[in-house]
Amino acid sequence: MSETSATYDPLDLARRLMACPSITPATGAVFDTLEAMLAPLGFAVERFVEGDAPDGPVENLLAVRANGPGPHFAFAGHLDVVPPGSGWASDPFVPHVRGDLLHGRGAVDMKGSIACFVAAVARQSALPGTISLLITGDEEGPAVHGTVALMARMAERGVVPDLCLVGEPTSVNRLGDMVKIGRRGSVNMWITVAGSQGHVAYPHLADNPIPRLIRILAAIEAITLDAGTDWFQPSNIEITDITVGNPATNVIPAQASARLSIRFNDRHSGTSLVARIRAIVEREDGATLDAKISGEPFLTPPGAFSTLISDAIDAATGIRPELSTTGGTSDARFLSRLCPVVEFGLCNATMHKLDEAVALADLAVLTTIYADILDRVLHASSTEEAAGPKRAI
Amino acid sequence: MSETSATYDPLDLARRLMACPSITPATGAVFDTLEAMLAPLGFAVERFVEGDAPDGPVENLLAVRANGPGPHFAFAGHLDVVPPGSGWASDPFVPHVRGDLLHGRGAVDMKGSIACFVAAVARQSALPGTISLLITGDEEGPAVHGTVALMARMAERGVVPDLCLVGEPTSVNRLGDMVKIGRRGSVNMWITVAGSQGHVAYPHLADNPIPRLIRILAAIEAITLDAGTDWFQPSNIEITDITVGNPATNVIPAQASARLSIRFNDRHSGTSLVARIRAIVEREDGATLDAKISGEPFLTPPGAFSTLISDAIDAATGIRPELSTTGGTSDARFLSRLCPVVEFGLCNATMHKLDEAVALADLAVLTTIYADILDRVLHASSTEEAAGPKRAI
Repeated sequence: MSETSATYDPLDLARRLMACPSITPATGAVFDTLEAMLAPLGFAVERFVEGDAPDGPVENLLAVRANGPGPHFAFAGHLDVVPPGSGWASDPFVPHVRGDLLHGRGAVDMKGSIACFVAAVARQSALPGTISLLITGDEEGPAVHGTVALMARMAERGVVPDLCLVGEPTSVNRLGDMVKIGRRGSVNMWITVAGSQGHVAYPHLADNPIPRLIRILAAIEAITLDAGTDWFQPSNIEITDITVGNPATNVIPAQASARLSIRFNDRHSGTSLVARIRAIVEREDGATLDAKISGEPFLTPPGAFSTLISDAIDAATGIRPELSTTGGTSDARFLSRLCPVVEFGLCNATMHKLDEAVALADLAVLTTIYADILDRVLHASSTEEAAGPKRAI
Repeated sequence: MSETSATYDPLDLARRLMACPSITPATGAVFDTLEAMLAPLGFAVERFVEGDAPDGPVENLLAVRANGPGPHFAFAGHLDVVPPGSGWASDPFVPHVRGDLLHGRGAVDMKGSIACFVAAVARQSALPGTISLLITGDEEGPAVHGTVALMARMAERGVVPDLCLVGEPTSVNRLGDMVKIGRRGSVNMWITVAGSQGHVAYPHLADNPIPRLIRILAAIEAITLDAGTDWFQPSNIEITDITVGNPATNVIPAQASARLSIRFNDRHSGTSLVARIRAIVEREDGATLDAKISGEPFLTPPGAFSTLISDAIDAATGIRPELSTTGGTSDARFLSRLCPVVEFGLCNATMHKLDEAVALADLAVLTTIYADILDRVLHASSTEEAAGPKRAI
């Protein structure tokens, strides 16, 4: 561990980021603030804005500090926040300390974690290798012009990390009790069956689409996608809606539709599931399928990287974190295409809620853990016992 | 056949009835008009009003003319009409002749037929036996205070017909091409399955009602009620609506419901079908059934009565009518509890439509047929070769 500057106190950094309103999609001041923190630490910072309303404009920031040969470790996260809503005890964009908590939108999700990235990097200026920050202004929204665009820019620049930590708030009851080593994928599907309207007394003159929709849904209900894996719960299909919209008791309706949500583990891909459901749907006349894949699953199998992170958490907190794949999606679904990715950050109890807040102690401890992770990854690479994370992990 | 009075010309009678607006439920002027026609013909007329808004008030009229011993023949029908809607070529309650058609609401359904009842009865004042007219002001509505109330009043008075003709517009392309010897029953059912709302990512914390509803509906779809009978088409179940009403793709809904319409022949009763569906529904947790039986089926098996009517039609038109049980329900579903019932009346092409109209020629021919039916039923009873319709039919 090296010097700690008062300028790079994580509480101060978090307050400065949280004081910039940045409801998703975000651009501008909050990125200026982050750039002003990183430039003095020797980072080359590139920023760019993409997209138009309503999905954009979105700002992205790529900061790279190369310090000779060695592995490349990336911190990834987002500066956009969900809308605060009304009913806060004080202005959500005027961060302030009450007791041992710092209140304000983004405190845990995830300006607080980004402040810890910066504070940890400031402490580790002497380490060899490369450190990058991959920061987007659209993780909370459609994420079309966010991390995906950032990865395209990285590809153009030849920026390829060996390991990546996403600072999402993964802790549940205590800082360090959970890290995410994977996330399920998610796909929504819409089934529509067309028929022909008519009077119930003359069914031969009509074509009721409902029996076909029921056959389709019964066949889908009969599917068991898998029994789960060592690291994932079983993939799950939920039929979330059925719509016919026929108010007349004596009328056979012209159309019937249904909607599915599938959360799936790494035994499947969104594409394979769409093809499988489509085959069932298209057995029936007049039946069509639309689908939207929100995210493919990812898994960084437990191993050297997750053990290294668990060790750093254990050293600072005495807790061995649970390695989990539960919950929704995150930008790790994209970043996992580049290198092993683990998610670890602050406690998520107040995220997306009124009076979002982070414990002051957690900011300090998380900074220590992040700095220790950098040390374990980058320092190890200059010693004999590890052949570099890329090969070791 | 006996005297024909200009006063009892069916066109004139029809115009007088159609000039009285009588949107269902009906009372008042239209019944005054009918009573004024019947009283001079020797009918004892009893009128009464039952029910409150919105199902009532409903007026009913029981007219009986007894002319010594002999069978009792009843004409049944309704003076209420469906609302005219907008877009008529002329005022729907100002009947007028254009070309060879009489236009106005109720022309065929069924003030025209009631005019023919009266005109036929006027021609047959010399026949022995009893003739009655059973006329309600609510056949087109919920029919709660209509023919059912009339039958209760008949029971109090000891009025029991031996045969009954309902004058609904049963003809399709030409007057006389179809009579109805039965009608299917009708029942609507509502299935509701209760579950527990939750997030699709955490299905173990929710209880999706949709899979249970699908199992219920698939089991119902698998039912074949019957293959039809000599006189009825197969009974038929239609699922007419499914409602979940869940707009959120990531939410498991708390409730799902469906609606069925069953049109059934005389192999079943409404009660037996409700019990059968209820048994399927109640196999599933949280599933409940509501049902409303609109009508039980009736059948007057082809025989002496339908042959007599066919002969009368044939004599006037040269057509042998098809004996049918198709279409919706009518008040014959109630009257069939009293005696054999057959339905025969005008052409139904314009019923319930804009510019409802009856051919002037049809009013004349239908009067002839009705008068001939009276003659065949009542005159036969006074001759040796028939032992009276009640025993012969």
